[in-house]
Amino acid sequence: MSVKESITTQQDEEFDGLTAAELEAQHPADAAETIEGLDIIDQVKFIKQLPIKDAAESIAEMDEHDQKALISNLNRGLAARIVDEMSPDDATDLLDTLDDDLQKALLSRVPAEERAELKTLLTFDPDTAGGVMNTEVVILDQDLNADQAVSQIRQEVEDKEVPYYAYLTDKKDRLVGVVSLRDLLLARRGVTLKDLVKTQNLITVGYNIDKEEVAHLIAHYNLLALPVVDFGNRLLGVVTVDDVIDIIHEEASEDMQAMVGAGADETTDSPWLYSVRVRLPWLIMNVIFSAMSAWVVHLFEGNITEMAVLAVLMPVVANQAGNTGQQALAVMIRQMVMERFDRKRAWLAVLRELRIGLLNGVIIASLVFCAALIVTGKPLLATVMGAALGMDMLLGAFAGASIPLLLKELGRDPAQASSIFLTTITDSMGFLFLLGLAGLVLLN
Amino acid sequence: MSVKESITTQQDEEFDGLTAAELEAQHPADAAETIEGLDIIDQVKFIKQLPIKDAAESIAEMDEHDQKALISNLNRGLAARIVDEMSPDDATDLLDTLDDDLQKALLSRVPAEERAELKTLLTFDPDTAGGVMNTEVVILDQDLNADQAVSQIRQEVEDKEVPYYAYLTDKKDRLVGVVSLRDLLLARRGVTLKDLVKTQNLITVGYNIDKEEVAHLIAHYNLLALPVVDFGNRLLGVVTVDDVIDIIHEEASEDMQAMVGAGADETTDSPWLYSVRVRLPWLIMNVIFSAMSAWVVHLFEGNITEMAVLAVLMPVVANQAGNTGQQALAVMIRQMVMERFDRKRAWLAVLRELRIGLLNGVIIASLVFCAALIVTGKPLLATVMGAALGMDMLLGAFAGASIPLLLKELGRDPAQASSIFLTTITDSMGFLFLLGLAGLVLLN
Repeated sequence: MSVKESITTQQDEEFDGLTAAELEAQHPADAAETIEGLDIIDQVKFIKQLPIKDAAESIAEMDEHDQKALISNLNRGLAARIVDEMSPDDATDLLDTLDDDLQKALLSRVPAEERAELKTLLTFDPDTAGGVMNTEVVILDQDLNADQAVSQIRQEVEDKEVPYYAYLTDKKDRLVGVVSLRDLLLARRGVTLKDLVKTQNLITVGYNIDKEEVAHLIAHYNLLALPVVDFGNRLLGVVTVDDVIDIIHEEASEDMQAMVGAGADETTDSPWLYSVRVRLPWLIMNVIFSAMSAWVVHLFEGNITEMAVLAVLMPVVANQAGNTGQQALAVMIRQMVMERFDRKRAWLAVLRELRIGLLNGVIIASLVFCAALIVTGKPLLATVMGAALGMDMLLGAFAGASIPLLLKELGRDPAQASSIFLTTITDSMGFLFLLGLAGLVLLN
Repeated sequence: MSVKESITTQQDEEFDGLTAAELEAQHPADAAETIEGLDIIDQVKFIKQLPIKDAAESIAEMDEHDQKALISNLNRGLAARIVDEMSPDDATDLLDTLDDDLQKALLSRVPAEERAELKTLLTFDPDTAGGVMNTEVVILDQDLNADQAVSQIRQEVEDKEVPYYAYLTDKKDRLVGVVSLRDLLLARRGVTLKDLVKTQNLITVGYNIDKEEVAHLIAHYNLLALPVVDFGNRLLGVVTVDDVIDIIHEEASEDMQAMVGAGADETTDSPWLYSVRVRLPWLIMNVIFSAMSAWVVHLFEGNITEMAVLAVLMPVVANQAGNTGQQALAVMIRQMVMERFDRKRAWLAVLRELRIGLLNGVIIASLVFCAALIVTGKPLLATVMGAALGMDMLLGAFAGASIPLLLKELGRDPAQASSIFLTTITDSMGFLFLLGLAGLVLLN
């Protein structure tokens, strides 16, 4: 539903208990939260009352789904002015979420120069350095001296978001160095920028590099911004540390959610039907995998009829091995996020998890053996239970640690559905160990 | 084992394929990784060859466990000089990991002024703003003008790590404002700092605020640094954005690992016995909880003897509801990390998960009903299976969404062992639904 027609602008209107003037005085990040709490009609009313700059800054801070809904309900002239006012990286993120028609309609209303820039930015994959970079950078000629540089920055800094570094390029636009405001303040009088960066170990990133790798580099080297270049080493833009924080947050959500088959980009604000749609395929996969575990049990139905107590013990084995495996899985996935992948170290980590699984398995299996002996009074049954549990826990540790590595080696996301694969293994093999051993030892 | 005695210093020695000179030329973050790959004897040799400043910077970037091992194996004079050379926040982090004796020994060798500062810093809880703040800040008198400020910063900036903001205090050391180098570059000639910050909305944080809340504020307001104050609003230090990235990474690991009962601070580099120790209590809790689910099955042993196929279906119900609940759990936990807690919104999110669980439950239950009907040819059995599965999935969605909220309301970590609580509920109630319904419908 469009609410464009139903708007009457009015002063002193209250939004969520705040007047428009109070809302306007909020930090854009806070204003964004307030706006998200309003219904769509009030959102539109409020945005219409804001100075265009404040509107653009607040909308840039909003959640993607809310952003899309709001922009779709504004009249196109205002929406285009807001897009034009945003920093190019925020505008690109916003345009990326819109339907193609609306995206084109808004772009056609943006001044030609900005339009060309936004169109270029939209060609980059949003998950790469090019897709998250900011193009508002201060570029200096390397033959300037520090004082000249400072006065040029002074002229440019007002409308650039990225203030801390300036970038030096040669005659062919190739990046030759980075100077920070700190460097300029410290520079000896008259020294040229070229001399200042002579021994610099310049860290750059190609535009097609995955944004998670970009985040990793910025975190690893404690940078405030990282320049993005093309294959000819020409400067395209920079990724700044505040964007990296968002990337790291997103990445952590993706991993935790993908692990169990929830949508990588789901939040509690996503439309609920969207969540149904993204989770359902994994739930269907899970039920098919469960059927495989059930089939293992089916093979031993005769044993269970003879000894129903086996059905009592089954969930203990499966659950315990599943938990053991998930511990290994969680530690491995986090490690793969935080450090560069190193195959040798990764497999050493699997070995480490095997040791942990072995010792914990032996301890828990012994406890369960004792408990089963006391409760049932049957030493053979207790032995079968302890042995099946210990073996399945060891297997769980191995599977939990190696599944993300195998997924990675197969070129997949190491987290995706890993918990589903894991429990399939620990369930089916746990039942096989328990029911198979019972068949061999107890029922012959 | 101490290796202090076995060291002979030698030039051109090779470490992990690199010469000492090459290693020295690496960025400290890279040198730290190389050092971590060496055995302890080579680590000590290498550190002895480095200029003290490089040694301090590299060690500051190392993993906590490796840091501790290396420092314990250096002679105390060198270790103390390294501590003295580090920035105070890094030195405090390092000292915090050491045994009390070694900590005291090193502190006694640090010059008196630094010692006093480090001792003060060590009194802050490492998980609070005070525990992660940096004390090397540029403080300016608010009556300076911009040019005077720039020349004072120029004098101080060389030995301060935090270069982008300078802080203004009044005569009683109370914080009155923050100016960025950008503000100073833009300031009109002759304007005083006091005028510059007159309308500023100063964001500060108390020293006892949890570091995760600090990270949240810096991310929310896109800051590069956040000033830390005491109850009298006196400036104690600043938390910088690069520390925040580490906090966000740690926090994500903590949540993902705590959820399944792995140690919050475990990495693949932690000693394996440490991991055994931190995981074991949760595994024991899990096995006790599993025994409760097993007890539910035990109540229905008679039914299982009559119909062993129930034991075949049990794992499907439990596993599927567990997976459904984990999807809800993952989304809720991430949301609680990334946004300020809002009780009303949180419970609305539970409602959202209930809807998702209901629709997914109905779809999966229908599929399973059809499959069970086809495979077994028994409509009643298929109905029981479908109904139990659907009910348990709905319960799983509710439990997964509400467990972190309940833990939070109880003042606990919302993630801690949440997955263990969840599967206990989905397992035991799933068995109750399936076996109980079967008893009512199929076996009378």
